[in-house]
Amino acid sequence: MSTKDELLKYLRESDGAWISGESLAAALVISRSAVWKHIKALQEEGYEIGSSSRRGYALRNLPDRLLPAEIRQGLKTVCFGRETIEYYDETDSTNLRARALAHDGAPEGTVVVAETQIRGRGRRGRTWFSAPRYGIYVSVILRPRVQPHEAPQLTLLAAIAMTETLLERASLPFAIKWPNDILVEGKKIAGILTEMALEMDRVDYVVVGVGLNVNTPEEVMAEEIRDIATSLHMLTGKNFSRVDILRGFLVKLEQYYALFQDRQFERIRDRWKELSGIIGKQVKIEGLDRAYEGEVIDLDRDGFLILKASDGHLERIVAGDVLYR
Amino acid sequence: MSTKDELLKYLRESDGAWISGESLAAALVISRSAVWKHIKALQEEGYEIGSSSRRGYALRNLPDRLLPAEIRQGLKTVCFGRETIEYYDETDSTNLRARALAHDGAPEGTVVVAETQIRGRGRRGRTWFSAPRYGIYVSVILRPRVQPHEAPQLTLLAAIAMTETLLERASLPFAIKWPNDILVEGKKIAGILTEMALEMDRVDYVVVGVGLNVNTPEEVMAEEIRDIATSLHMLTGKNFSRVDILRGFLVKLEQYYALFQDRQFERIRDRWKELSGIIGKQVKIEGLDRAYEGEVIDLDRDGFLILKASDGHLERIVAGDVLYR
Repeated sequence: MSTKDELLKYLRESDGAWISGESLAAALVISRSAVWKHIKALQEEGYEIGSSSRRGYALRNLPDRLLPAEIRQGLKTVCFGRETIEYYDETDSTNLRARALAHDGAPEGTVVVAETQIRGRGRRGRTWFSAPRYGIYVSVILRPRVQPHEAPQLTLLAAIAMTETLLERASLPFAIKWPNDILVEGKKIAGILTEMALEMDRVDYVVVGVGLNVNTPEEVMAEEIRDIATSLHMLTGKNFSRVDILRGFLVKLEQYYALFQDRQFERIRDRWKELSGIIGKQVKIEGLDRAYEGEVIDLDRDGFLILKASDGHLERIVAGDVLYR
Repeated sequence: MSTKDELLKYLRESDGAWISGESLAAALVISRSAVWKHIKALQEEGYEIGSSSRRGYALRNLPDRLLPAEIRQGLKTVCFGRETIEYYDETDSTNLRARALAHDGAPEGTVVVAETQIRGRGRRGRTWFSAPRYGIYVSVILRPRVQPHEAPQLTLLAAIAMTETLLERASLPFAIKWPNDILVEGKKIAGILTEMALEMDRVDYVVVGVGLNVNTPEEVMAEEIRDIATSLHMLTGKNFSRVDILRGFLVKLEQYYALFQDRQFERIRDRWKELSGIIGKQVKIEGLDRAYEGEVIDLDRDGFLILKASDGHLERIVAGDVLYR
């Protein structure tokens, strides 16, 4: 733990009460002016810290930022986010950063978070609107011991983890929209982008990225998506702790990932089907090359959707844009 | 074309005859001392250039290196290697370099070559012995318009291209060993490593890397592979132009890649089957998790091997180590 983080720990533990600079200096074995320098740095990160020459320092308010020290505070994971959380106030895309880290050998569980993304991306090179400090933009590096064709299932897994995280925090009809979105009453609240580096029979790494609209007010939402996107704030009128949601997501993701590594694909699929509600629906799907139409019969082992066309023949579709009919 | 490349062109065109420094300086519109500087640089790259204060300069011998200017000389491709050939005297691995370039947006057809690799790699993280200046270590960036599950076929394609290139230059029984090697009489002469970056339904890029033992003498071959590896030199006693082989490979690869983009998978598979001779053979295959045994029935659309076990049931295998029985 860095000296700054240790200082923060003392402030946290005193629970808003004053601690003298002298006792902090003694506890950390640094000078009083060094204490003051670290306090300044914390204030710049957004921590509200009262200071008084007579009484010392008191932590008044935590910053509304996805700072690694905040995320780690009480994070109940075994691996995800425990070693490295790379934080950006602004970056091109957390998935791009995570892929670069993974390429350089970053271990499983490495997390990249950003307050905003300049090139936030969705599936098929689409953009993802990333309102600064209102949303969660996070990517996790995975190195699963599976066959390449099994890796796309990690999108299902991330969708389940995020949907459950949301359901625990708001009583809203969150539903997974195959393959990679989470909707509330037809409006998009979260999107998942899974990217991977493979050999023929070996997965090098998978990066699972999630964008979630948390406290975004309607007026901040980009004009062109205002009718099709929503946020927790727009739905409830309340603000949510992004750090708390992110911690919850990392815990859920790790739990389901453990099932995945244990090859319990069936349990993951069953949970996905419950949370998606797509099975049995009549849909039209715009695929890469062509469109499909029919009734959704199943989600298969590899995460492909099985569609029954009106003439009875079955289609197996890896991804596409679903239109419910 | 750089001034140095233009100077090289004049030397080449004079076909070994002397050209005066004065006429070169006039043709290139540079000073005579600038001519001399470029000549020095070319000599350092390995070009043997005679110089005489009275007669000028004469090109005596081309370097035995995979220099971009040499590869491009008469290269009959449309795209591959036409824009960027990145050359290393030594690098970690051409595939790693190509992946980094592709990650940063390098276009299809970008080529990376090296005289040697410090971390030459094979499938499943195995090492590839890369004797300096004796072999060809090359990677090509592809951005195919196919579904992710179709991309592994590019390994087949590279194997065909390399085998045909070799067959045109030496009358030896070159054969493809599924999934990614080329053998002569049971000894490995070339290996292919295909790596890719994908989304669920979109290929970002594929890097096809090939390592080929060309002029490697037996005594240079690493001790531990001397019994299982071979080179064109070991098989024929002759030395081959590596530049000529590389050019031939790039042309073949581009031709088969055009078929692939045109979705003529059947033609590629048929050619692969001819060159592999594995169909109908009794084999044992060590897969990632388990071993398979039986008769090879077919190679399917996605490049999976179809094996018929002794009890008659079929297995579909993406990759593994084949032992012929």
